[in-house]
Amino acid sequence: MNTFIIQRHKVIHSIIALCFLLSYSLTNAQQSSSIHSKNTEVKIDSIISLLTLEEKVSLVHAQSKFSTPGIPRLGIPEIWMSDGPHGVRGEINWDNWGYADWTNDSITAFPALTCLAATFNPSLSNDYGISVGEEARYRKKDILLGPGVNIYRTPLNGRNFEYMGEDPFLASKMVVPYIKGVQQNGVSACVKHYVLNNQEEWRDHINVKVSERALHEIYLPAFKAAIMEGGAWSLMGSYNKHNGQYCSHHDKLINTILKGDWGFDGVVITDWGSAHDTKEAILNGLDIEMGTGTDGLTTNQKNAYDNYYLAYPFLQLLKSGEIDEKYVDDKVRRILRLMYRTTMSSNRPMGRMNNVEHHEVARKVASEGIVLLKNENNFFPIKDDKNITIAVIGENATRSMTIGGGSSELKAQFEISPLEGLKKIYKNATIIHAMGYASGPSAYAKVLPSTLDAEKLKTEAIATAQKADIVLFVGGLNKNHHQDCEGGDRLKFGLPFGQEDLIDELLKVNKNMGVILVSGNAVEMPWLEQVNGLMQSWYLGSMAGQAIADVVIGNVNPSGKLPFSFPKKLKDNAAHFYGDISYPGDSINQEYKEGILVGYRWHDTKKIKPLFPFGFGLSYSSFDLTDITTDKKSYTPKSQIKVTCTVSNTGTKDGAEVVQVYVGKSKSKVQRAFKELKGFNKVNLNAGEQKTIEILINTDDLSFYNESTANWQLETGNYYIYVGNASDHITKKIKFTIN
Amino acid sequence: MNTFIIQRHKVIHSIIALCFLLSYSLTNAQQSSSIHSKNTEVKIDSIISLLTLEEKVSLVHAQSKFSTPGIPRLGIPEIWMSDGPHGVRGEINWDNWGYADWTNDSITAFPALTCLAATFNPSLSNDYGISVGEEARYRKKDILLGPGVNIYRTPLNGRNFEYMGEDPFLASKMVVPYIKGVQQNGVSACVKHYVLNNQEEWRDHINVKVSERALHEIYLPAFKAAIMEGGAWSLMGSYNKHNGQYCSHHDKLINTILKGDWGFDGVVITDWGSAHDTKEAILNGLDIEMGTGTDGLTTNQKNAYDNYYLAYPFLQLLKSGEIDEKYVDDKVRRILRLMYRTTMSSNRPMGRMNNVEHHEVARKVASEGIVLLKNENNFFPIKDDKNITIAVIGENATRSMTIGGGSSELKAQFEISPLEGLKKIYKNATIIHAMGYASGPSAYAKVLPSTLDAEKLKTEAIATAQKADIVLFVGGLNKNHHQDCEGGDRLKFGLPFGQEDLIDELLKVNKNMGVILVSGNAVEMPWLEQVNGLMQSWYLGSMAGQAIADVVIGNVNPSGKLPFSFPKKLKDNAAHFYGDISYPGDSINQEYKEGILVGYRWHDTKKIKPLFPFGFGLSYSSFDLTDITTDKKSYTPKSQIKVTCTVSNTGTKDGAEVVQVYVGKSKSKVQRAFKELKGFNKVNLNAGEQKTIEILINTDDLSFYNESTANWQLETGNYYIYVGNASDHITKKIKFTIN
Repeated sequence: MNTFIIQRHKVIHSIIALCFLLSYSLTNAQQSSSIHSKNTEVKIDSIISLLTLEEKVSLVHAQSKFSTPGIPRLGIPEIWMSDGPHGVRGEINWDNWGYADWTNDSITAFPALTCLAATFNPSLSNDYGISVGEEARYRKKDILLGPGVNIYRTPLNGRNFEYMGEDPFLASKMVVPYIKGVQQNGVSACVKHYVLNNQEEWRDHINVKVSERALHEIYLPAFKAAIMEGGAWSLMGSYNKHNGQYCSHHDKLINTILKGDWGFDGVVITDWGSAHDTKEAILNGLDIEMGTGTDGLTTNQKNAYDNYYLAYPFLQLLKSGEIDEKYVDDKVRRILRLMYRTTMSSNRPMGRMNNVEHHEVARKVASEGIVLLKNENNFFPIKDDKNITIAVIGENATRSMTIGGGSSELKAQFEISPLEGLKKIYKNATIIHAMGYASGPSAYAKVLPSTLDAEKLKTEAIATAQKADIVLFVGGLNKNHHQDCEGGDRLKFGLPFGQEDLIDELLKVNKNMGVILVSGNAVEMPWLEQVNGLMQSWYLGSMAGQAIADVVIGNVNPSGKLPFSFPKKLKDNAAHFYGDISYPGDSINQEYKEGILVGYRWHDTKKIKPLFPFGFGLSYSSFDLTDITTDKKSYTPKSQIKVTCTVSNTGTKDGAEVVQVYVGKSKSKVQRAFKELKGFNKVNLNAGEQKTIEILINTDDLSFYNESTANWQLETGNYYIYVGNASDHITKKIKFTIN
Repeated sequence: MNTFIIQRHKVIHSIIALCFLLSYSLTNAQQSSSIHSKNTEVKIDSIISLLTLEEKVSLVHAQSKFSTPGIPRLGIPEIWMSDGPHGVRGEINWDNWGYADWTNDSITAFPALTCLAATFNPSLSNDYGISVGEEARYRKKDILLGPGVNIYRTPLNGRNFEYMGEDPFLASKMVVPYIKGVQQNGVSACVKHYVLNNQEEWRDHINVKVSERALHEIYLPAFKAAIMEGGAWSLMGSYNKHNGQYCSHHDKLINTILKGDWGFDGVVITDWGSAHDTKEAILNGLDIEMGTGTDGLTTNQKNAYDNYYLAYPFLQLLKSGEIDEKYVDDKVRRILRLMYRTTMSSNRPMGRMNNVEHHEVARKVASEGIVLLKNENNFFPIKDDKNITIAVIGENATRSMTIGGGSSELKAQFEISPLEGLKKIYKNATIIHAMGYASGPSAYAKVLPSTLDAEKLKTEAIATAQKADIVLFVGGLNKNHHQDCEGGDRLKFGLPFGQEDLIDELLKVNKNMGVILVSGNAVEMPWLEQVNGLMQSWYLGSMAGQAIADVVIGNVNPSGKLPFSFPKKLKDNAAHFYGDISYPGDSINQEYKEGILVGYRWHDTKKIKPLFPFGFGLSYSSFDLTDITTDKKSYTPKSQIKVTCTVSNTGTKDGAEVVQVYVGKSKSKVQRAFKELKGFNKVNLNAGEQKTIEILINTDDLSFYNESTANWQLETGNYYIYVGNASDHITKKIKFTIN
């Protein structure tokens, strides 16, 4: 750890130096939000009055794969976007999906958002946002396409790794500081994918039916927080439909809820190619159409982008008078407002990239997000003893996880593999390695590996395991199609590429095995009982191997908690309980039959024990929660419940514990989840240290969404507070009343 | 003209509106220059102290065709450059010379700098600089590669059109406001090509020998003014050698003169590939190496750019201690200083592009730069009479002149051809057209025209001329190789592509011919006596046809003056008088044997009458210069001579006259030109109007460069002031004395 401490000092020094030198004036998010001032609005109105109809329409659709035009004659700048959310994507060609092969676009790859969620550390989320925002700014990007806060509904969703887990409260608390961090750079975050894009299968057309309650209580809250608390300046519509209308131009979702109820004054952007109808796009709140397909040219159009729904067809409707100009003016007003917050902001900082501070944030998120799930006989940490031979086996020990995965693919300046990290940190123990299995080339790999013989790989791996004192199996999923990758869902719940068989074979020759699971999703674990250790490591970005090695050797005490439940079998997951109509649908429609009972709400309420519960995660130390009280026994609406708790590190290692506060209502006029997360606090404690913490809960946050009144309602009566360090490990239950 | 007046009002309105709306804070050049403050220098020193040796070296050479890297970890930005000087070039690929095929890079094409020089209007030069600078800024370019101020020495130089004529005083006065205009946008001008790059033949290696007097009196003054008065932040070294050393890393030219005598604190950039030696580049003041060829890879290098003279080889010399770190620190300091003036400036405006204000500047420069050379029986202007048929003949009536020419090639948003302009402006007269001759495809033309039969074209043209009352022959040179184009010189002085024959043939059927000569160079004119009108129209950019038509019809009264002499025959030009050793040299060396007697200095002194003299240009009106006096009869050093003159428009049309003040010394201890331009003033006068103007001359500007003392020396004794409206049309000669 010493090297990091030294680096950090150096880092702080150079931050201070540069803040002085470059006279960076960091605007904080509050200041930025206040740009939506009367003064700015007057300026915007005046600009709109100068624009021709053609110019207005030009602003609301793409000019290239990742940019929209400005108004050159008036000096109104272009808007440049980049895929996110784990880093700024490599430069893409002007008009096709190929990489532009620039040499200045290698960046810091940050851990996947599932990992960030697993840290249960909002302050770290802010560091993440600031860092990735600085990289976007340095790369001259004005909108970073992220973060994603679609709810983890099924472990088969290929894109879960880009999101923040199954709980709307956790996702809300984690997304807000990320957005503020990005946007303090004068770079817009773009919250995605709004909404109900909870699977990749048939994402481009599947019609999602869901109860209004589940929509408002489960799927919308993180978006609401992103907008109303995070102050996100833009939002991306999803590909799918909801109640028969495409979400990217959806009257209820955008007009009524987003721009109406939530007062969103920013820009709604399509996912690439998610617009399907000009009039709906005009009337239902879509502000910018970006795209993938261009549908050929017609004679009236100068280039393919003129064919977009919000391009020539929009212009024609405006010219004919069929559509009132106020519709385009509103979109332009929002776009100009975004410009005043980004490109036209006079005091945005200049950004930076690939600096040690960003590497350190990436490392910290990675090492705080790793979740220790099983640690039989203190399998971890593994001491650096010269008499020990560690066999590192599995393709994920060496495979790049920044390549592939779809739009979140990154061109990382470097990516430390688990094997590399382990080899570097273990100075005395002997590390031996075998690939074990092969999954084929990465989705975007340019060079194909030579054909690998599965049997030969297995034989080599067994021989390697046999020679070792300890086996670390580094497997899981990867970023290929039908794994953790945009554009398709996983095909099965178990580990792919013959890993289950391989683990069995390895265990026959060496029972002292720990598994490091690299994935963005839960997997089935028929082998769990037989392994001594299990670490959930996610996709960890540039510093992956360093973070893993730090936890394995014990330099970092793991403190991550699962942001979603791991069911024992797929059918135990709520989305899969009701059969195909619930997931993946019949290719036209699907219905979220589980309603509000997503994730641990399902497991808790239905008493279906998960393999690993939401909020669960072990430590190398042990913690006690004591003196848990509420300040009162009864509360009124619009008040706060103060939960007090003393947390003690009773072990011998410094570490951190996440105190989790759930609330449930036993008797209700509506169906309730047994309990729901309403507060958490990650507490760092030295060995033997004790701290008393407070967690505040707004009583209004205990409301349910009343479908009959279409509004939130706080029921009076008895409630229970559950305080613990995991959703299945509750130390204390306290009854209270709302009057 | 009414449409323009209306546009201009609209323009002013929207400028005011936008200045308010976007809160543009235009820094003027003086403010920008003051950035080189102690405070900034302290910041720069502190940044340098944070940089590694590798980072320092990375800053001093290209990372792509048109950019240099920043220091991402510290937020130090990249520098992006674009070819100039007549507009911002289309986007080029990262690592090859192909166009990137973006659709946001069509710009306003401004007239060639020869045309700008011909306006004799420094205020218009400032408008030009502001405008092209705004376009560069909007295109996110930090350095605009221009203006060019190499002296017009021979009419065969393929690149004269990019420069400002044969007179160092005129070029100096015209270049300074251009630079200030560009740089007030936070965009660096890059004065080029320093120096003695006065021909394209063998430019990459020819060794130029020239007297110290001619160097200092003829070839350097415009550069000196660009640096010392214009405050240019960067300068481009030329390809050629001088006295055996390449000019891009030339001890005397850069260390002694530029950075020593002139105190240049900016950045010296190579022409692309003009560096040839690492140690010379390090020691002789080159700051940034840009390139064309990359010479293959070696094992130690990550990419081709690492092979540059100022890349890996530089780093090795630094690491070995053979070169002191202060050398790289000085280069980095200059680069950071440029960044503080451009990319890191907190208050640079945002630029704009393709706005009517820029079109208007382009039009104004074009129409003010057109020079009326012959106007027998008031051939011009041609009235718009419905009984008149005008035959427009010649390829240049329709040929694009923004395509081709080398690095100054532009992707113009539009370019009004002469034919188009004439057709639009003539509402009553009949315009008929024939191509007349064909020169082949443009240098960069992607589509080849079908093979054209020269005889057929000629026959058609003759038939067309026969039908007309008036023939307008629109010919000249074009932007192809061996015409007015970078990388080669013209092969002959006469008109190419059979135009001389064609003119003869046309005259046989229609003697009422005017010629519109589109070129950046003087041409031989065996046909001159037989034509009634002659207009020198240069390369006029986007508004070319509009400007030409305005002058032809009489909406604009021509006021341009020749910025260089048109000799009757090539041998009459000074550079060609002494044979091959003087031009083009023997492929290794050349010697400027004419010394200081360049252009009109030669014609005047040697009494070789030119076809058209420097400073010459007719008007549709007539002007008298009267009451020409000096304020005193004798002056001291470091004083000012005030010349007063009354200018009267004695004609019936509003117009402008350029009063030119030359000074000569009859008896001198050194060879003197008969007279040299030392002042001018362009005076706008309504018909019948009279104005009294003053022209100030610093007596020190009458100094000659004393080679024996290597310093400027002001001789005492008698001098003569010559005041007139052309170098060969002197109204008054006044004797005065320097004591």
